Amino acid sequence: MARLALTEVKALAEQVLEKYGFTKEQAVAVARTMVCGERDECTSHGVYRLLVCVSTLKAGKVNPAAVPVVHDHAPGIVRVDAKGGFSQLAFEKGLVALKQKACTNGLAAMVVNHCVHFSALWVEIEAITEMGLVALACNPSHAWVAPAGGKGPVFGTNPIAFGWPRTGQDPFVFDMATSAIARGDIELHRRAGNPVPLGWGVSPSGKPTTSAQEILDGAMLTFGGHKGSALAAMIELLAGPLIGDLTSAESLEHDAGSQSSPYHGELILAFDPRRFLGEHYEHYMKSAENLFDNIEGQGARLPSARRYEARKRSLQHGVEINDVLLDELRAL
Amino acid sequence: MARLALTEVKALAEQVLEKYGFTKEQAVAVARTMVCGERDECTSHGVYRLLVCVSTLKAGKVNPAAVPVVHDHAPGIVRVDAKGGFSQLAFEKGLVALKQKACTNGLAAMVVNHCVHFSALWVEIEAITEMGLVALACNPSHAWVAPAGGKGPVFGTNPIAFGWPRTGQDPFVFDMATSAIARGDIELHRRAGNPVPLGWGVSPSGKPTTSAQEILDGAMLTFGGHKGSALAAMIELLAGPLIGDLTSAESLEHDAGSQSSPYHGELILAFDPRRFLGEHYEHYMKSAENLFDNIEGQGARLPSARRYEARKRSLQHGVEINDVLLDELRAL
Repeated sequence: MARLALTEVKALAEQVLEKYGFTKEQAVAVARTMVCGERDECTSHGVYRLLVCVSTLKAGKVNPAAVPVVHDHAPGIVRVDAKGGFSQLAFEKGLVALKQKACTNGLAAMVVNHCVHFSALWVEIEAITEMGLVALACNPSHAWVAPAGGKGPVFGTNPIAFGWPRTGQDPFVFDMATSAIARGDIELHRRAGNPVPLGWGVSPSGKPTTSAQEILDGAMLTFGGHKGSALAAMIELLAGPLIGDLTSAESLEHDAGSQSSPYHGELILAFDPRRFLGEHYEHYMKSAENLFDNIEGQGARLPSARRYEARKRSLQHGVEINDVLLDELRAL
Repeated sequence: MARLALTEVKALAEQVLEKYGFTKEQAVAVARTMVCGERDECTSHGVYRLLVCVSTLKAGKVNPAAVPVVHDHAPGIVRVDAKGGFSQLAFEKGLVALKQKACTNGLAAMVVNHCVHFSALWVEIEAITEMGLVALACNPSHAWVAPAGGKGPVFGTNPIAFGWPRTGQDPFVFDMATSAIARGDIELHRRAGNPVPLGWGVSPSGKPTTSAQEILDGAMLTFGGHKGSALAAMIELLAGPLIGDLTSAESLEHDAGSQSSPYHGELILAFDPRRFLGEHYEHYMKSAENLFDNIEGQGARLPSARRYEARKRSLQHGVEINDVLLDELRAL
């Protein structure tokens, strides 16, 4: 393993992206996700994603010079057309309007359309909680997941993420796929020839299976049975048809076997607790702190605890990156 | 079993409530939940709830003559103070403003404060989808559910419900507790002396258990492990501190052992798909229909299918109510 400072991770990521023709502002925005991923030891969103960015580019499935356009769509909606670029820059361009609308109305939505998506939602959630707002975000992906009681892929891994701002502390944040497990984990089991636990997916005929290969040929399942399946459908609807963008099935069709990152939209909601609470703001933010105390006080952890611990380490000591991966990235 | 027409169920429920001093408009609103519950064979929200209404009233925990007050809180927020009455009338009084705000801004929130709550959220969700809007609702309850990795009750059964309007068809609606199971089911197992499945709850020392009694003494668990737990926390925050109302722990404290219905708030979001989609409305509503077709086409069911089938039966033939319960209600 090689040890890199976060500034070195940033430089590496931007360099690769710019070399492949991403504009400076696209490269900076996309690299930010990877730096955050490495920093918080979420390597699934780290620099290995550069390989996917490059292959998505080579497949003609992302616009490296996209200039997102911000539309004031409605008093409560800012719409950002990502113009076929990665989602990150579009998200960043919509933030100011999202905040202004949330503070004015109490709540507001940012719709990102026509984006290629691999961003970690928690990175975006934190950008909103830093502004003192409560945040909720979700998006479809590629259709790999069957509905409860079914056998054919309909949903994406459809993540949902939520954040609550805390004064002088890291925000309360969770970011979870509604699939039982990440597709990458099933792929790892297949490569290692190991069985997977029951509940991760079904065979092409819809039977519960422990075979990773059968699941990859069949369909993944959601977490939490019919309840997780209902949530996956909600995310599909909210961040697909409602915002005028593709469903996971349509995204996979658009992919046409190129194994690129999904192409669809994203819905982000922001709530201004000051606008909701007025003079009672301090009182009820304290009541939220009591809730967190009641969770941590009994030895349970808040959802992002592991990431924040990793972040502390990384900010002090930098991050470790696999030598082979690093060579591969530097050779790009 | 006795067979009653829905008009008879309505008359019975309103009669009992008025006899106990609920005002006409309170009685009509509260009875509507029970009629819908019986109609859709969701007897957990049916007329047996009259017993709970009466005991909650006798405990002094609900205001039978409450006149909800509607506040135009912000351009995107209508706030209804239920004034200590049941939630239903407050919800109904806020609907017109919710619709107007959602259509103007694209999305809006209804906050119901200071309500005593036993309403089925799907009843409210359907009232919103009938107006052509997409709906999302959630609320805390009494603290009976431990966070993932913990042993002490912090969350309520914290339901979340969602609805999507469909032209000429019943809406897509789900309404689910984030607890693994309803508290009533655990109570039924305890009475019958039957073990419960692992995963429903933990003993007072935090150990997984199949003993219903140990769970009632200890804590229930959420569905879906740490993911369900994260959702329960989100609901607690959104429909508690964010809207300036009680958490499930505070509601249980307020109850002071009276075993009344919970006292807290509710958050309802409405999204106007016409405002989001403009001229593309028809196209993307069709894309949502494709999603539903892809689910049903493979033999999986949409979340509310069972309720809609029951509804058809009930509208034609009326509903069956247990004789003993009916006698008990008529004797009230």
